[in-house]
Amino acid sequence: MLDSLVKSDQAEKKSVFEIFVREIPQGRPFGVLAGTERVLAGLADFTFNGTHLSFLRSQNIISAITRDWLADFRFTGNITGYREGEIYFPFSPVLTVEAQLGEALILETFILSILNSDSAIASAANRIVEAASGRFVMEAGSRRISPESAVNAARAAYIGGVDVTSNLEAGRRWGIPTAGTASHAFTLAFGSEEEAFENQAKYLGEDSIFLVDTYNIEQGIRNAVNATNANLGGIRIDSGNLGVEAQISRKLLDDLGARQAKIMVSGDLDEYRIKDLITEPIDAFESGHKLVTGSGSGSAGFVYKLVEIEDSDPLIGMRPVAKNTSGKKSKGGRKLAKRKLDLAGIAIEESLFLDACNERIRTTGNFRDLQYLFVDEGVISGRFNIEDARNQLAKVLSEIPKEIRLRSGSHPAVTAVLYDGVEAIG
Amino acid sequence: MLDSLVKSDQAEKKSVFEIFVREIPQGRPFGVLAGTERVLAGLADFTFNGTHLSFLRSQNIISAITRDWLADFRFTGNITGYREGEIYFPFSPVLTVEAQLGEALILETFILSILNSDSAIASAANRIVEAASGRFVMEAGSRRISPESAVNAARAAYIGGVDVTSNLEAGRRWGIPTAGTASHAFTLAFGSEEEAFENQAKYLGEDSIFLVDTYNIEQGIRNAVNATNANLGGIRIDSGNLGVEAQISRKLLDDLGARQAKIMVSGDLDEYRIKDLITEPIDAFESGHKLVTGSGSGSAGFVYKLVEIEDSDPLIGMRPVAKNTSGKKSKGGRKLAKRKLDLAGIAIEESLFLDACNERIRTTGNFRDLQYLFVDEGVISGRFNIEDARNQLAKVLSEIPKEIRLRSGSHPAVTAVLYDGVEAIG
Repeated sequence: MLDSLVKSDQAEKKSVFEIFVREIPQGRPFGVLAGTERVLAGLADFTFNGTHLSFLRSQNIISAITRDWLADFRFTGNITGYREGEIYFPFSPVLTVEAQLGEALILETFILSILNSDSAIASAANRIVEAASGRFVMEAGSRRISPESAVNAARAAYIGGVDVTSNLEAGRRWGIPTAGTASHAFTLAFGSEEEAFENQAKYLGEDSIFLVDTYNIEQGIRNAVNATNANLGGIRIDSGNLGVEAQISRKLLDDLGARQAKIMVSGDLDEYRIKDLITEPIDAFESGHKLVTGSGSGSAGFVYKLVEIEDSDPLIGMRPVAKNTSGKKSKGGRKLAKRKLDLAGIAIEESLFLDACNERIRTTGNFRDLQYLFVDEGVISGRFNIEDARNQLAKVLSEIPKEIRLRSGSHPAVTAVLYDGVEAIG
Repeated sequence: MLDSLVKSDQAEKKSVFEIFVREIPQGRPFGVLAGTERVLAGLADFTFNGTHLSFLRSQNIISAITRDWLADFRFTGNITGYREGEIYFPFSPVLTVEAQLGEALILETFILSILNSDSAIASAANRIVEAASGRFVMEAGSRRISPESAVNAARAAYIGGVDVTSNLEAGRRWGIPTAGTASHAFTLAFGSEEEAFENQAKYLGEDSIFLVDTYNIEQGIRNAVNATNANLGGIRIDSGNLGVEAQISRKLLDDLGARQAKIMVSGDLDEYRIKDLITEPIDAFESGHKLVTGSGSGSAGFVYKLVEIEDSDPLIGMRPVAKNTSGKKSKGGRKLAKRKLDLAGIAIEESLFLDACNERIRTTGNFRDLQYLFVDEGVISGRFNIEDARNQLAKVLSEIPKEIRLRSGSHPAVTAVLYDGVEAIG
């Protein structure tokens, strides 16, 4: 496709693409954006080397002119968008790419793949953290998705609000706090649980977390208390009826003089199971599989759509365009996005203004600006770190009433409204 | 955890770990194994460099002795397992790692993460291909999952049976056949659909696939036929009621003299939607989102469990071990796996023999060997390429009756039975 655009002299036309979802997966009230910073970091390395070009030549996939075009590729356009940690709704233009048509098209898969995976996980993480209502949440899903994805999933989960990850490489790369617990294999490796826990107390510390369900939970707790003189940091329970086991364990720990010991539970926990467990004496939740696979929705559903193209008639200039087929309609024209808030600061509308009316909009109403210029003529002009993203989410969540944040199977919390210049005022 | 094993002199004990699932996601009859070859390829690069070690030191995560242990890490054990493209059931030991405890433990996340992601996608691909009943299937989900995952997903999907991928990097890396179609942006980039299709015919070829649903499908087909003198390769429909549109389109193409033109459909297709469409005049299905996110199950659910450990008493030698808690029981001891077939070659049992009885088993019954020695004392001793894996699946699928292959919400096609030496005979 790129090849025919280059050959038909279309690749250098000015174009504008917007990235948005048509719906939020599973009827959740909103999504949490993550991945933008990874897009920006990857943009500098987005080039085609000799190996790539040789393959394309050997397979006759592109012509010589397009090969030269790819060899010289460097992004020269603008990228504007929502910040990581911002929440979004159907049709929120979370990223806008303004560039030559060829440049913009070639970035489509790269940008979508990052935003779709990272936002799916940040959105799931946020629901799990919301369900945990302030209890500690550890992400420990690395073994469930591919190695590189696991590192990136840890990042997205941290943006979504988890306290800590078990992925050390994510800790190394982005400074995310890391933690771990022992495994069943650790306990099984020793001649007995007593021996295993004595070694854990000696080498990992009395205040570490003891996995007590390898053989028998009650005896496991007694062994952990004995091995630590009741100074254990906590226990982890990974099987059985977690709520019942937590109650029994709490009583036993207290009776044995280990009131300080925390109770952590794990085992395919998602927001629904955590919500069911929230009245139990549980201090920390470990979430793996469900979190890193998006809790039932492994991809956020972002699409990348051309909304404006340079007309061949210079008098027309940029021309709004949109696909016009059933079920997948969208509106042409570049949009300026603001969130309309009521007097209490609750979001009541995602307001999308056609670009032309920028100036008048800036002067009116209780709107919060949503878009930020990340790349200015090919140069990265603004970046936020992972703590910024996490803080952004904490801040903007206040725009969504607490009682609907965990809702699913219903409508988005707010809907997008497209304004032209006149309607927008007042 | 590794640190305390090294410090307590446990890391060099001989150990055996088995990788298996406790259940097949969504009650499907079987899973399709993929990822083993990626594990083998990655094993050689599985080392810890100065950057990794500095991070671990700076964070006080491990002691100096364990840092030295990591710096010298090289896998010296054996890996045995099912071939890629083999099908598996609950408790099938798809990979067995026999190594020093520290070596085996440190590979856990690496191995599980690859097998869990690749097998989830190969399993979904196989269901989609099964539903397509011989029609052409194209994988085009790269934009839905993270960039590196997309390349690996294309590989797993090809093992699962898809005909072609849209991911060019997967084509470059593994020789998988690639293909692509034009996008809505391509059509929108031109002044009119007529102009777009004329350029597509000129530069991509008259025999390419025309995306006809940007504005109006009927007019789109007429424009594609006009632009190609009725020689178009085919059309793609991405929206609307795909079955109805395919019927109308087939009649129109035939009426316009384009009987050779194929009809491809796309748009969040999974095995269920494809099954519903199979009586329609559709020649090819494109599957993206649902395929690369595992069609509802993004991770296969493999666990990595210690089954034997060297006892500190040399007279005991290797000692079988197993976790013994509710809901997550498993059986200790290394297993030899064979598939028991009836006289028609249909699988009737996954037969797991405790290692000790190898010799007697080899002489009896209609059992097919399932395990292959991939790594022998740290040296890769056997590898299969992606076509081998694909052929393996095609072959072993014949062991599962066609009418239950697409089943879900039920039991596995066969169950695993653990035999001791005496029971195995006869």
